[in-house]
Amino acid sequence: DIVAALNGAAGAVPSIAALSDKRVLITAGPTREPIDPVRFLANRSSGRMGFAIAEAAARAGAQVTLVTGPSQLTAPRGVTRVDVETAEQMHREVLARAAQADLFIAAAAVADYRVAAPADQKVKKTETAQHLELVPNPDILRDVAALSDGPFTVGFAAETQAIVDNARRKLTDKGLDLIAANAVGEQQGFDVSDNTLQVLWSDGQATLGPAPKTQIASELIELIGARLDATG
Amino acid sequence: DIVAALNGAAGAVPSIAALSDKRVLITAGPTREPIDPVRFLANRSSGRMGFAIAEAAARAGAQVTLVTGPSQLTAPRGVTRVDVETAEQMHREVLARAAQADLFIAAAAVADYRVAAPADQKVKKTETAQHLELVPNPDILRDVAALSDGPFTVGFAAETQAIVDNARRKLTDKGLDLIAANAVGEQQGFDVSDNTLQVLWSDGQATLGPAPKTQIASELIELIGARLDATG
Repeated sequence: DIVAALNGAAGAVPSIAALSDKRVLITAGPTREPIDPVRFLANRSSGRMGFAIAEAAARAGAQVTLVTGPSQLTAPRGVTRVDVETAEQMHREVLARAAQADLFIAAAAVADYRVAAPADQKVKKTETAQHLELVPNPDILRDVAALSDGPFTVGFAAETQAIVDNARRKLTDKGLDLIAANAVGEQQGFDVSDNTLQVLWSDGQATLGPAPKTQIASELIELIGARLDATG
Repeated sequence: DIVAALNGAAGAVPSIAALSDKRVLITAGPTREPIDPVRFLANRSSGRMGFAIAEAAARAGAQVTLVTGPSQLTAPRGVTRVDVETAEQMHREVLARAAQADLFIAAAAVADYRVAAPADQKVKKTETAQHLELVPNPDILRDVAALSDGPFTVGFAAETQAIVDNARRKLTDKGLDLIAANAVGEQQGFDVSDNTLQVLWSDGQATLGPAPKTQIASELIELIGARLDATG
């Protein structure tokens, strides 16, 4: 397949020279954006893809830190886990570590917006319509990609339409080294175990899957290893 | 304790005559209200209290149906589970069964509001603030309590302030037979295993706990059995 052709590897991830002892920073899961003490905005991310990538990177020989939103999953053995809840917390924990990382993989489904003014007390129900004012969250991926001398930066694009076009625009706009795009929606992408990824970089493209997320994660880590070798 | 004094029982829930072979309908968990195919509004309910009440009611000899929003929990043995996601779905499944029930216990943390116009496609991020228009959800508890010849109806009130006052107002306003009120917020009520309940009915009041939710659930079922006996 295309990954094997790129780096000569076959089967499950062995130690990958390009990743051996490298510092790899990965985000996973959803974020929760509070509305009041009990309510929040969230999304359907289970964290499975990010956790699977963390496991594949650790098996490839990397030193892995996983910054994750709320997830029922257990961190892979040997991985340093940092738990966060909101996008702003994730931004802070990632930016505190990104300059020292060799590779950053943003697999979290970070909320684009947070509630402008979360309530201190539970909001009482009324019979009328309500408006919730939302403001944009900081863009973790863009801020890491913009670091001078920053890590090789890999983004994800969860799209419901025009998947490859939207992903290539995001690759260019945010100054990423590589982007992995998948289709999401009912029964696709989030909260299921099988997946297909369209992987794009400045002068190339590959398709991974359909396959279980654990296998997709191993193939993605192999592909990233090959790109790290190629870009030096 | 007050529960033992009410019905002469002691220790873990034995078969309770007032509940034996009675049809008990219970709701549990949060609801999720879609914003678009991947995002939603939700709340911190784990479903633990509703699942524990379902288990206690089944052990007391009742025929239990549990209508639950998204929860990681496993339904207790012998309980019929009905999975739903939104408040409107929960309303439909409950109202389809309520007229045939002898007892209804509304332990779910139902979203008060849903998004007025959920998007068919994932909403793209922009740099400007957004408004989310919310409309009130149907009131499951009020609609069950309003049924002529409906079940004995038990509500929950999750409050962050003026707990007993707010709960007694809800008891009267919605025409409930009994209400169980608890304090929620950071580290209280939701997503934790210990709990305290203030239980109110037209001419009485009791405090259960602080204790693990499983014990609170057993004591609440005993108390409800005593109230069913007292009200005939």
